[in-house]
Amino acid sequence: MTVTAEAVWQDIEQIRANAPLVHNITNYVVMNTTANALLAIGASPVMAHAVDEVDQMAAIAGALVINIGTLSGPWVEAMAAAMKAAGEKEIPVILDPVGVGATSYRTQTANELLAVNAPAVVRGNASEIIALVVSGAQTKGVDATAAAESALTAGKTLQETTGGTVCISGETDYIISSDEVVSIANGHALMPRVTGLGCTATALCGAFAAVNPSSKEATAHAMAAMGIAGEMAAEKANGPATFQTAFIDSLYLMDAGDVARCLKAGIVA
Amino acid sequence: MTVTAEAVWQDIEQIRANAPLVHNITNYVVMNTTANALLAIGASPVMAHAVDEVDQMAAIAGALVINIGTLSGPWVEAMAAAMKAAGEKEIPVILDPVGVGATSYRTQTANELLAVNAPAVVRGNASEIIALVVSGAQTKGVDATAAAESALTAGKTLQETTGGTVCISGETDYIISSDEVVSIANGHALMPRVTGLGCTATALCGAFAAVNPSSKEATAHAMAAMGIAGEMAAEKANGPATFQTAFIDSLYLMDAGDVARCLKAGIVA
Amino acid sequence: MTVTAEAVWQDIEQIRANAPLVHNITNYVVMNTTANALLAIGASPVMAHAVDEVDQMAAIAGALVINIGTLSGPWVEAMAAAMKAAGEKEIPVILDPVGVGATSYRTQTANELLAVNAPAVVRGNASEIIALVVSGAQTKGVDATAAAESALTAGKTLQETTGGTVCISGETDYIISSDEVVSIANGHALMPRVTGLGCTATALCGAFAAVNPSSKEATAHAMAAMGIAGEMAAEKANGPATFQTAFIDSLYLMDAGDVARCLKAGIVA
Repeated sequence: MTVTAEAVWQDIEQIRANAPLVHNITNYVVMNTTANALLAIGASPVMAHAVDEVDQMAAIAGALVINIGTLSGPWVEAMAAAMKAAGEKEIPVILDPVGVGATSYRTQTANELLAVNAPAVVRGNASEIIALVVSGAQTKGVDATAAAESALTAGKTLQETTGGTVCISGETDYIISSDEVVSIANGHALMPRVTGLGCTATALCGAFAAVNPSSKEATAHAMAAMGIAGEMAAEKANGPATFQTAFIDSLYLMDAGDVARCLKAGIVA
Repeated sequence: MTVTAEAVWQDIEQIRANAPLVHNITNYVVMNTTANALLAIGASPVMAHAVDEVDQMAAIAGALVINIGTLSGPWVEAMAAAMKAAGEKEIPVILDPVGVGATSYRTQTANELLAVNAPAVVRGNASEIIALVVSGAQTKGVDATAAAESALTAGKTLQETTGGTVCISGETDYIISSDEVVSIANGHALMPRVTGLGCTATALCGAFAAVNPSSKEATAHAMAAMGIAGEMAAEKANGPATFQTAFIDSLYLMDAGDVARCLKAGIVA
Repeated sequence: MTVTAEAVWQDIEQIRANAPLVHNITNYVVMNTTANALLAIGASPVMAHAVDEVDQMAAIAGALVINIGTLSGPWVEAMAAAMKAAGEKEIPVILDPVGVGATSYRTQTANELLAVNAPAVVRGNASEIIALVVSGAQTKGVDATAAAESALTAGKTLQETTGGTVCISGETDYIISSDEVVSIANGHALMPRVTGLGCTATALCGAFAAVNPSSKEATAHAMAAMGIAGEMAAEKANGPATFQTAFIDSLYLMDAGDVARCLKAGIVA
């Protein structure tokens, strides 16, 4: 596919018009900022993690976002239940394997969740995508220690397993689907200095997947919106906190002209 | 009652002078922003949710705020224990039934909590207030899908059950007590685009209830302060994130002149 | 020791060069803001609290930060396990006894954790440090109700128990080690009006302790960086929320000249 500004913008308009409900089971660190990012782009976020209700909540949502950043037993159980419910209703699941490879618990949990219901999209940094595929790969905490390019082979292997879309985010983002690899080269150097912007990217993939049935298009468009908002924010930022504020505002303010002016998309393979 | 700028301002001055302790058992999404809102208006927030300590914490507080936005079993148990302890000490309880109607777990939990100790104040959006009263009413996630006006009948029924004050928030807020309904028409269109401003309203009801023994006055004054801070913030905002920042600053900066200039209160019935 | 601008700056440069991993088991209210503060100063934060993984995560970290602001049973168990693992690897532990004295559960938990592994640094406000030492001392929630000076005797007693460094934060911060007491008089009056800046100070102690093996130097330098960032932020702030944003930016922007111009350090005893 060719990622065009028109197609990115069409999805944004759909999100703003329909305010799709995005059910997030995510980590404590980013709940507030990802909820605000979803509201800013035009979606309707809900956070719910009790095993008593996640099946019902996932079933009324347009997408289910699963993020393992701050795991524990009851949350893993709820994630699996929600993914199962989403699968039964054919609601797209977006998985963010935060910190996989840093501990064996994270690696094992991510693999268990992958087995419950193959996600429409898996989005991680290079270290995480490699750790999902290469047994015993060690990562440091939650920050990437490798360039996105270095995970392309692992990403392709993971894509073959899930059958969906795999996104490796970094300075350039790679969106891997069964038949091609596209790249998005938008973004700004301050983005890794703000906590949870990777998690925000994953949440936005949920909003786009709720309005676009093609998981590879939804992912590429979400990553483009992320990167473009980052570039818009950088113009108003003094440091990471003013950047974060301007980033959320930019998701809200972004118009067709911004997308057309900024988009840097390519076809890798 | 007539909601006057003088009376709103008097409560704000009392909060700033006494820094009442407000004990919150609230959801993960909004803990940071509601704590900051409480500090900004002049209160002293504490978050504590362990069943091992909530009775002691509630007992030293000026108000107890219960918000069911991100429920799970142990939290519900602690909410009930804290509400019981607050009841024994005659400390006002403010309940925010976030997302009631979206899942049966939320509806059931909210009704169980209402039975533990009738809250001095219940504050929700129209969808939530209706779902608390109308069996089987379905809502979408946590965002209002109905105008506040549409919940007036349900709000009156709920008020008869609790005997306290019921607040339906929306473009116009309605404060329902046993003998009357008053309205506050302050606020700004960006407010629903920021996560947790409803939860912030509920937390502020706690701060006002800690200094004003009339639950209907405390609620009306809190909603007025919310809406006025929203109008002040809108003058400095580019989008939802700069709005949120300016909103917290406005709670801190608000003076008697701001309240007198902005207040839009009315008597509905 | 004499706290010099050169030594403070050298630690900041080390953090920026090495991006030490700081493992936080902290409270829900501050996770986002402390992660952003750690990223802004140049560290790599990770939050993980499952008993299934905290030993592995602590073992790969440069420092372990334990904060009891929002406790519950499973978290206390994980805190103890992480502190034990950190002790075995000689990784410095920083303890923030948030709200100790407000409930007996907090006081008991803090004392249990102190017994697991004596922290390299304990940082609290005056009320908390007194409550750790004086049996039955009652505090109000999480805010200080006493000036830092009033806790100096308690702080010395606590230092004798842990053998590490004790920091009492307030308008002036006191850093107590086995042989001396130094003071840092930087900071700004808006700091207590932002939730979690005490917790942020504790997290920064972790970043500094990860690059400086002297716990008393690391603590003094971290408190200096906090206070200086606060003074830089005050120049751009209208209220507590713009202050918080400017504070994070200042941690990122701070240079050797800022430290040299602002540092107000002294030797008390």
